[in-house]
Amino acid sequence: MRKQNTYLVWLNWPVGAFRLNARSLAVLQHLLPAGARLVVVRSERAFLRALPEATHAICWNFDKVWFARAPKLRVLATPSAGRELLPADAELPPGVTRVNGAFHGAIMCETVLACIFAHARGLYRAYDFQRAGTLWPRAEMSPLCSRVAGTHAVILGYGKIGHAVGARLEALGVSVTGFRRRNVKDLLPSLKTADWLVVVLPADTGTDNIVNRRVLAALPRRAVLVNVGRGNAVDETALADALRRRRIAGAYLDVFKKEPLTADSPLAADLPGLVRLPHMAAFAPEYLPFFFQELADGGWLK
Amino acid sequence: MRKQNTYLVWLNWPVGAFRLNARSLAVLQHLLPAGARLVVVRSERAFLRALPEATHAICWNFDKVWFARAPKLRVLATPSAGRELLPADAELPPGVTRVNGAFHGAIMCETVLACIFAHARGLYRAYDFQRAGTLWPRAEMSPLCSRVAGTHAVILGYGKIGHAVGARLEALGVSVTGFRRRNVKDLLPSLKTADWLVVVLPADTGTDNIVNRRVLAALPRRAVLVNVGRGNAVDETALADALRRRRIAGAYLDVFKKEPLTADSPLAADLPGLVRLPHMAAFAPEYLPFFFQELADGGWLK
Repeated sequence: MRKQNTYLVWLNWPVGAFRLNARSLAVLQHLLPAGARLVVVRSERAFLRALPEATHAICWNFDKVWFARAPKLRVLATPSAGRELLPADAELPPGVTRVNGAFHGAIMCETVLACIFAHARGLYRAYDFQRAGTLWPRAEMSPLCSRVAGTHAVILGYGKIGHAVGARLEALGVSVTGFRRRNVKDLLPSLKTADWLVVVLPADTGTDNIVNRRVLAALPRRAVLVNVGRGNAVDETALADALRRRRIAGAYLDVFKKEPLTADSPLAADLPGLVRLPHMAAFAPEYLPFFFQELADGGWLK
Repeated sequence: MRKQNTYLVWLNWPVGAFRLNARSLAVLQHLLPAGARLVVVRSERAFLRALPEATHAICWNFDKVWFARAPKLRVLATPSAGRELLPADAELPPGVTRVNGAFHGAIMCETVLACIFAHARGLYRAYDFQRAGTLWPRAEMSPLCSRVAGTHAVILGYGKIGHAVGARLEALGVSVTGFRRRNVKDLLPSLKTADWLVVVLPADTGTDNIVNRRVLAALPRRAVLVNVGRGNAVDETALADALRRRRIAGAYLDVFKKEPLTADSPLAADLPGLVRLPHMAAFAPEYLPFFFQELADGGWLK
């Protein structure tokens, strides 16, 4: 007779989209095997107390010293696409598999589309006029509006999320060039014709400041940077400088070197074309439901 | 021997995207038959002076009394999709064909996508926080972000432009219900599940105040109105009231009953969820090039 699994779930992040609620809990319950034991906790203390019985732990973060209290653990899963919240592969005890969420592309691609279309169609500048009380800035808006179809997007970080972004853009008439990290040396020539540089890189080693002064200088003045990956990829001083000198037309940044963003960041200033988002590119009510479905589809809930 | 055609072009609108420039002129010259006579004018007076020789007139507006001065005219073409700038069909002399531009969908669909994605992904609210100096409104933004895929769009005005909008939305996972004017009585039941009510109606008779109090009341509270057609379609007092009472979540309006918009409009106020655009949904450098290509493709430049 097969032993009963215990699914220990600790998903209590202060951001609503990342926190288990009645709807996402119902999705998980529906996906678990019949008779499964589900333990939902809301604190680290309760998590550690329940850990000895857990065969599956689903949580945002896990300290490697906790493995000593988890003799039955087989699956350690986090919704995060980033590798930094769980122990590295080399730190996993035998028999334990780590699973990072990889469902984010279906949400994040929409944030990238939103930034690109809002920029090209002049929505931010029109809203600036609206907020300033200008009722009919029609002649002023004309030179600020362009089409997305027919433009060229360079996507830096061409894994699952990068491909999700690229597929949507291509469907809308954008030509897409994708780069994985190992091909980055070929990046510079591509940037000459880039309207959009979309960064979807993870924070793994080797991506620090990939978007540096040289990369920014290779872009045309009309180009716009969109970073929904991790903040370490961008040289923030160089970017602030490029925006200030209008070396590029804009930057839509969801991520920053230091989060939460603080006033001492070079990107906390009011720079031309700078749009800041508070690491929200993957926010959606579907966030945890998509993750649970991905766990089920991958066989990780067995 | 075939008589030489004279193409009289008066496209001097104060909005840059609608005005002939070196680039769009070159596109037109390339499309004209060899040996064609091209007369470009910049004023009504010069237009009327050249009209007697014109076989083709390409202009923004044309008064029906001018036909008396245009004995050779065969084609009267305007880039506008609206019927209000040229004489009606019944007013055309025998042998004169009126051509309205119908190329706008490829540009306008992008403005609609921009509004829908910017709204769903919370870009306007994040920008409000940015402008207020809030550096990290992460928890605040979480409930304001949703996905576009899986939503339902009702498109009112399902001609060429409406279909261009619908095709893009469907490609991005939105279910689309399109209504032509004659089917409007079936509209109300569809609105119950609508996330987006996209209006692309022309200003022809019969569309006045189609989007009235009853239509707005039939929408769910999460719904958003996007009007890129003509302002006459919306009961502006009813809409202002619906926004003020948060009966719907937002309105992205490119057109108004009275343009230019003035301070006495019910929509000139600062209403929750109201985004105003100055009739710019079709702005793009490709505007006139697309129109000239359409004239050539339709055989109107022969």
